[in-house]
Amino acid sequence: MNKLVDGEWRTDAYETTNEEGEFERQETTFRDRIRDDPDARFQPEAGRYHLYVSYACPWAHRTLVMRALKGLEDAISVSVVDPYRDDDGWQFTPEKDGCTRDHVHDADYLRELYVSADPDTTCRVTVPVLWDTQEDTIVNNESEEIMRMLDTEFDEYATRDADLYPEGYRDEVDRIIDEIYEPINNGVYRAGFATDQGPYDEAVDDLFSALDHWDEVLADQRYLAGDRLTEADVAMFTTLVRFDNVYHTHFMCNVQYIREYENLWPYLRDLYQTPGVADTVRMDHIKEHYYTTHPDVNPHRIVARGPDLEFEAPHDRDELPGGPPADLSVAADD
Amino acid sequence: MNKLVDGEWRTDAYETTNEEGEFERQETTFRDRIRDDPDARFQPEAGRYHLYVSYACPWAHRTLVMRALKGLEDAISVSVVDPYRDDDGWQFTPEKDGCTRDHVHDADYLRELYVSADPDTTCRVTVPVLWDTQEDTIVNNESEEIMRMLDTEFDEYATRDADLYPEGYRDEVDRIIDEIYEPINNGVYRAGFATDQGPYDEAVDDLFSALDHWDEVLADQRYLAGDRLTEADVAMFTTLVRFDNVYHTHFMCNVQYIREYENLWPYLRDLYQTPGVADTVRMDHIKEHYYTTHPDVNPHRIVARGPDLEFEAPHDRDELPGGPPADLSVAADD
Repeated sequence: MNKLVDGEWRTDAYETTNEEGEFERQETTFRDRIRDDPDARFQPEAGRYHLYVSYACPWAHRTLVMRALKGLEDAISVSVVDPYRDDDGWQFTPEKDGCTRDHVHDADYLRELYVSADPDTTCRVTVPVLWDTQEDTIVNNESEEIMRMLDTEFDEYATRDADLYPEGYRDEVDRIIDEIYEPINNGVYRAGFATDQGPYDEAVDDLFSALDHWDEVLADQRYLAGDRLTEADVAMFTTLVRFDNVYHTHFMCNVQYIREYENLWPYLRDLYQTPGVADTVRMDHIKEHYYTTHPDVNPHRIVARGPDLEFEAPHDRDELPGGPPADLSVAADD
Repeated sequence: MNKLVDGEWRTDAYETTNEEGEFERQETTFRDRIRDDPDARFQPEAGRYHLYVSYACPWAHRTLVMRALKGLEDAISVSVVDPYRDDDGWQFTPEKDGCTRDHVHDADYLRELYVSADPDTTCRVTVPVLWDTQEDTIVNNESEEIMRMLDTEFDEYATRDADLYPEGYRDEVDRIIDEIYEPINNGVYRAGFATDQGPYDEAVDDLFSALDHWDEVLADQRYLAGDRLTEADVAMFTTLVRFDNVYHTHFMCNVQYIREYENLWPYLRDLYQTPGVADTVRMDHIKEHYYTTHPDVNPHRIVARGPDLEFEAPHDRDELPGGPPADLSVAADD
């Protein structure tokens, strides 16, 4: 796979799997924080920060969902890369539907920003990227941390009063985000990128055990952490919304569809119908990306048809206690 | 793909797809008939004919189902090839579970029989093969024709009185077998082996239109041709039984599972539970064959987990008029 090595673009810089055929995700490298603190290098401001995303990528999608739930569209601008990623990595193709130019640098490739931020960097070139237009550098490229910053540090600029990391729930939210990462969010990749049967089988076992577990939990409570919509739900959402059309077939996570789960499926529709969320879902970008970008998994790059999912169908989850924050509770407005 | 050309084994003898990326199935070449007629070259006899099959292959599977439904196990013996097919084509690996030696010739490869039957033959080496031990040659290697011969020419040796090509239904049976071939039986291959998006899309459209149609038909009648179990059901069965675990994911026929169809799924269970049928289904051979034999479709040869299908669950189809022949009507005996 490709990667920047000492600031140089290399297309054979690393293997996605180890000798046992297990997928190994490389760590993200830019980990600064925006903090609502006068001493902080990166302070929250409207118009200062810019998000680079792909609609296809579940990690980037988390930050887009959070930006929408908080109503930060005017405070934080966005550039969208092409869903198809070739040997040159993520690129900007503004002529393509749903894609944009690089609004900050007018770069052709996302890797140019990484080199601009650190000319000697050695890292993968991934989305999301939270860019600081004031210091002209990358603040952070780790989705969980960007999601957290948008949630907790920008209340002054948010047009919706939606706290998704509420007091009294924080330990539970952190615990759940951590607990679902390996078997579910990363689990679909472990299944899909495994090059041997053993690691695939292990990933599929872990994945469906975890899905079965959360399906049970969601029988009695509306959200993962209980009666409140939280960041944990955002982290789960971007994997679930891709599942039936991509992970199920492309990554062979085919024990069952999410739409066959008694509670996960209405839960997914509930999240999808939360104001602002549906507009962040571009299924065309999602399907094009996965099916065409991994010839090692899908040699002919044919985009599978997949099921037709009725995300807008009634979910009846509002019969359970609690609900989303008041500013997000009237789905009919959207 | 490999093929015999003038009796020589060639591993690059033809392309499976044409220039448009459409899968093109090559015709079978041995088309003689066993006839219950004293003037016929091949006359029905017990112990004279031998079937070569793979449990994995839906075409071969049709002949195994027919042999079981008629109770021809003692009259017609069987050799089973290895489900994994490499560049040498189908082979005999008696040490492997469910496989046998070549009971007639003790050959290592199925292609040896083809050359033995016709030293100058140019053809693909496929299963099923109906072999005549008296003239030491291939009678026929076309599944529909073998199925028909076992059904109509061997009544004297059949231990079950089961006519699956009954008078009054024959035109309809022929019509249905022909009608389901292109969109369904061959349709899954057209989807899975397409190398371009257009032919894939067309195959998937045809396939699910046809499945939707038959699902509707089966709401009001127990079998494809009406109230009688016929050869048309056997022809449909061997595709449907492979669908959710193989065609759905491996061939990207993933609009929905058969188990999600209101009538096709109980219909499939009804057929599966018909006496003799379940023993012909080796899901381990089916899954191993497809997932490991087509690296051009599934490069790492990982066998997808797939759904756990409850073929033995009650089907309630006996509430519809008609039913199988009397000798096949007591499923509880099996």
